[in-house]
Amino acid sequence: MEIEIVNDVLEYNKEHAQVNRQLFKDNNILVINILSSPGAGKTSLITQSIQNLPDFRIGVIEGDVSSTYDAEKIKKYTDDVVQINTGGTCHLNASMIEKALKKINVKNLNIIFIENVGNLICPVGFDLGEDYKVLLSSVSEGDDKPVKYPKGFIKSSAIVLNKIDLLQNSDFNYDFFEKKVREINTESPIIKLSCKTGEGISSWIKWITSKKENKKNN
Amino acid sequence: MEIEIVNDVLEYNKEHAQVNRQLFKDNNILVINILSSPGAGKTSLITQSIQNLPDFRIGVIEGDVSSTYDAEKIKKYTDDVVQINTGGTCHLNASMIEKALKKINVKNLNIIFIENVGNLICPVGFDLGEDYKVLLSSVSEGDDKPVKYPKGFIKSSAIVLNKIDLLQNSDFNYDFFEKKVREINTESPIIKLSCKTGEGISSWIKWITSKKENKKNN
Repeated sequence: MEIEIVNDVLEYNKEHAQVNRQLFKDNNILVINILSSPGAGKTSLITQSIQNLPDFRIGVIEGDVSSTYDAEKIKKYTDDVVQINTGGTCHLNASMIEKALKKINVKNLNIIFIENVGNLICPVGFDLGEDYKVLLSSVSEGDDKPVKYPKGFIKSSAIVLNKIDLLQNSDFNYDFFEKKVREINTESPIIKLSCKTGEGISSWIKWITSKKENKKNN
Repeated sequence: MEIEIVNDVLEYNKEHAQVNRQLFKDNNILVINILSSPGAGKTSLITQSIQNLPDFRIGVIEGDVSSTYDAEKIKKYTDDVVQINTGGTCHLNASMIEKALKKINVKNLNIIFIENVGNLICPVGFDLGEDYKVLLSSVSEGDDKPVKYPKGFIKSSAIVLNKIDLLQNSDFNYDFFEKKVREINTESPIIKLSCKTGEGISSWIKWITSKKENKKNN
């Protein structure tokens, strides 16, 4: 009897990511994979995005260890939402996404946001077939996150800094944060915003629409 | 040729945890393993603890994916600090702690704080030989963390809620937070505090000293 060995978990993941990527391409869907710590504001960024992108049909894949809280919040803004409960696993993988995609009407969508599990370390290693990773950090987490958790900052095509309404009453040093991001990622824009007050959201929306436009033209 | 297989990573970890536990017991050291999201305030809680426990010699083991930022902050308050850089790994394990303990003067210490890697999911699965796990959450992360990341809340002997100075200007619902903690952990105290203003720190110090007293008497 031969025992089959899956030698490389990441290789296996890559195959499923490729299936997802092809599906997104065939249907001309822009897909954004949002990475952050717990509580940085991923769900708020997504609900703000849906409200500010009325010309697009937007789907959301919600990743959490447990609960359906975030999917319920999203449901107020779009019907095309599916919750993945990882049941303990610390990141989403491409195979989970492949299954989730069967539960939403992909053909109708223009943009999909994937809200990854709240974890600044593990999710970045898993390609889901997305077009872009976005690293969401927040003022309340402190300005040293690019130094302490570099990989997500390196691999992301945009760095979003949320909760800038808290800047005034905090010791967060924005110049330091920017300097440390630039030491490891010279290209990706840093977008400052507050999902609470709406400040800066227009820059984020501009980034999304430009990426959507690019994808259409390729 | 026989190939040795490490069947169970957690079993291997358990053996090293036992070595650490014995060392802590032999030297009558209380050991606290602090778990939290990135930026919840683990380092601040430790520096507050050192300043408010002048009668004890305190050592600190700092866990981070990269950088020595936190160890440098701690160094202002105690010489007995060692930094572990996991280089990508999302949690500390008992073997890392065993090595780190060789670099501090264990025999002189009364209390050791272990600052785990900022991650609300993975660290909880790894016994380090500590006496108690403490789950540190913060107001800025939102009140739904016990629902979305339950395991750390279940396995911890105290739940500390930091940044209560932000309660007034936030939509954090403390009653909801407490209710959700109590649904999964009926026993561990919930200690509300602000490392910034010092409010509530005395309750935390009281908890530590009572645990230290218990250990001495056992």
